[in-house]
Amino acid sequence: MNYPVEDIRYLEAAFDRFYSIGLDENGGVTRLGYTASEDSMHAVLRQLGEELGLAAAEDEVGNTILSACGPAEEAYLIGSHLDSVVNGGRYDGVAGLLAGLLVARWAKRDGAAIPLKAIAFRCEESSNFGVSTLGSGLVAGRLAGAGLAALEARDGQLLGEVFAKRGYSLSPKPIAGVREYIELHIEQGRVLQEYGQKVGIVTTIAGPRRFRLHIQGRAEHSGATPMVMRRDALCAAAELILEIEHIGIAESARGSVATVGVIHNIPNALNVVPGEVQLLVDTRGVEKESLDEMERRIKQAGKSICERRGASFLRERVGGSAPVNMDHKMQDKLARASHRLHIPHRRMTSGAGHDAMNFAAICDTALLFIPCKDGVSHNKNEFTHMESIWDGARIIYEYLKEECGL
Amino acid sequence: MNYPVEDIRYLEAAFDRFYSIGLDENGGVTRLGYTASEDSMHAVLRQLGEELGLAAAEDEVGNTILSACGPAEEAYLIGSHLDSVVNGGRYDGVAGLLAGLLVARWAKRDGAAIPLKAIAFRCEESSNFGVSTLGSGLVAGRLAGAGLAALEARDGQLLGEVFAKRGYSLSPKPIAGVREYIELHIEQGRVLQEYGQKVGIVTTIAGPRRFRLHIQGRAEHSGATPMVMRRDALCAAAELILEIEHIGIAESARGSVATVGVIHNIPNALNVVPGEVQLLVDTRGVEKESLDEMERRIKQAGKSICERRGASFLRERVGGSAPVNMDHKMQDKLARASHRLHIPHRRMTSGAGHDAMNFAAICDTALLFIPCKDGVSHNKNEFTHMESIWDGARIIYEYLKEECGL
Repeated sequence: MNYPVEDIRYLEAAFDRFYSIGLDENGGVTRLGYTASEDSMHAVLRQLGEELGLAAAEDEVGNTILSACGPAEEAYLIGSHLDSVVNGGRYDGVAGLLAGLLVARWAKRDGAAIPLKAIAFRCEESSNFGVSTLGSGLVAGRLAGAGLAALEARDGQLLGEVFAKRGYSLSPKPIAGVREYIELHIEQGRVLQEYGQKVGIVTTIAGPRRFRLHIQGRAEHSGATPMVMRRDALCAAAELILEIEHIGIAESARGSVATVGVIHNIPNALNVVPGEVQLLVDTRGVEKESLDEMERRIKQAGKSICERRGASFLRERVGGSAPVNMDHKMQDKLARASHRLHIPHRRMTSGAGHDAMNFAAICDTALLFIPCKDGVSHNKNEFTHMESIWDGARIIYEYLKEECGL
Repeated sequence: MNYPVEDIRYLEAAFDRFYSIGLDENGGVTRLGYTASEDSMHAVLRQLGEELGLAAAEDEVGNTILSACGPAEEAYLIGSHLDSVVNGGRYDGVAGLLAGLLVARWAKRDGAAIPLKAIAFRCEESSNFGVSTLGSGLVAGRLAGAGLAALEARDGQLLGEVFAKRGYSLSPKPIAGVREYIELHIEQGRVLQEYGQKVGIVTTIAGPRRFRLHIQGRAEHSGATPMVMRRDALCAAAELILEIEHIGIAESARGSVATVGVIHNIPNALNVVPGEVQLLVDTRGVEKESLDEMERRIKQAGKSICERRGASFLRERVGGSAPVNMDHKMQDKLARASHRLHIPHRRMTSGAGHDAMNFAAICDTALLFIPCKDGVSHNKNEFTHMESIWDGARIIYEYLKEECGL
């Protein structure tokens, strides 16, 4: 496909204006939610919006809204986020706002009367406060409660203090006047690349279910304790890690994954048989039955492995949410639009959570994926082509024109 | 056996004076080599020695020497150490010095003209600088070289800096005038307890051989990466940990052990498939052939596991030494002494390294073990009876009297 040079140049120029914000020594970026670097990202977006003639505003939690229609008019919302993980990449979140700007630019150029808003949510990543999608969750009413104020940032500040300083509210008015919500995001996986498709239309956002597993063995001298007398907690953990991998593979058929991402080995000393291990496990699935099955099998495996080894086992749930379905009609219409435009797509699930999941309960919601190189995300090597952002934006614009009878 | 009340009280009172040094919140102690808490241990020992009329001195690396004879006289050396691991116990090392004090006390009481010195070595544990038996290794000439100055402590200081500040020397005069070396140490295993014997006479100190294993997989999003597309470094590490356990069990027949004590998982984040893992492996054996076989099999296992999983594998040797035999004649004489005293003993190997191994090359050397409760060591639950220290000291005293024709 020949991409319009002017559009690609526009995207590149906009992308460049975000480029150095939160720059790390290693070449990645750190733009944690509700910090100065995220503020700078929002300031640049605001400028970019105003340059397109959009009205910029900030809501009660710091989200930035760029409107191509009157503030009271019911609008299509194109959203994503501008924060990053620690040492993260430059496309996760940003791609969605670039798509929003491009759609608004086309609508203006074509004089297309689409009631449209682009919205940048605050603090989508869990990296700063341990909770993800704060900005969208608060205004969509999916996050609330007194507990939020006590969330602690990496620098030790509490979310309540941060909000007080900034004049934000932890119990904002619910967002109103949303006709539909559409988000474009990089895939953060390799499925589109491996299948050679340009756009993914998400059917369901997987629900994460997370566990902390405790294994208590017996710490003793590694030189003086014969192998047969040991209760090595790390060996028990190793068995459990492999069993969790097997459980994930078995549940792959239902689109699930299971990952041990974190291990704490105590005392973690060369000459001591490990006495205690904690594992943090992340399971995700689009079917509740599969999540239940994984939970049951992980519990069972932990118990039987530890029993056999004379260790003790404890399992704690540390968070989770149910899978969220995207709107079927929107999926079908987006698929037809991509077909008309000859941009090959596939339907797929999202293993990662996104701001979109907070909107499914309050309006029809869609999520589009574009490929990112080798599926790499959350580090400096994250990369996607401006042409891929163009592909996604073009499908969204096609869809919106059709919806508005244009 | 009825133990003399006065001796047991003396041991208890001496032990109590060390008790609170380096006390941790959890009830254990942290007395890292070449830190202020180890200094306090040496200061207390010095006082205890002076109270017995022993002449106290410090050598060029900070070891404390208590002499019951002239400084130039060739003497029997009773040695061990006063440092501990992080959150360690109170008997590892200290028991040997208590035995030395008790023997010196008996000799004084009995007017027994035994040329005797008790010596407390610095930094026997590898916990602070990653290298064990620093104090004894330096003066016995088994540790030397420019590399030592660059060893880094847990707080980031280099050994060279620490020595310069304290006025110590990394190339001290070799220790002289040692007739024989004898050490008493807690077993740090459960062999004596399980067999109901009171003293172990060590035949060989196992040689440790240590490795750092690097596994390089691919870090990616744990939600967005299907199980079949992963190169999970932690899962590869888990397989390898279990294989190393199997190798250790197989080589148990030759008295060997294999332990993965340390794991570093990178980035160790809940939502990232682990991309990189480092393991530190400790193998020990009394036969060189068994150490060679374990090394060969660990290398082979690492390569084949990582190859199958599309990860890369690297193995580094990070230290090691050959098994060290204790003197045969001393073993026989100590066995006869324990027989005469009706204190049941067994001959056994030592899986752990001890200061004694640095002396075997320069003089006849012996190592005695006493039981510790459930074999527990290197943590707050480490416990041995004062009566066990008495047993060991009594055998040493009996042996020394015979050697001196008393």
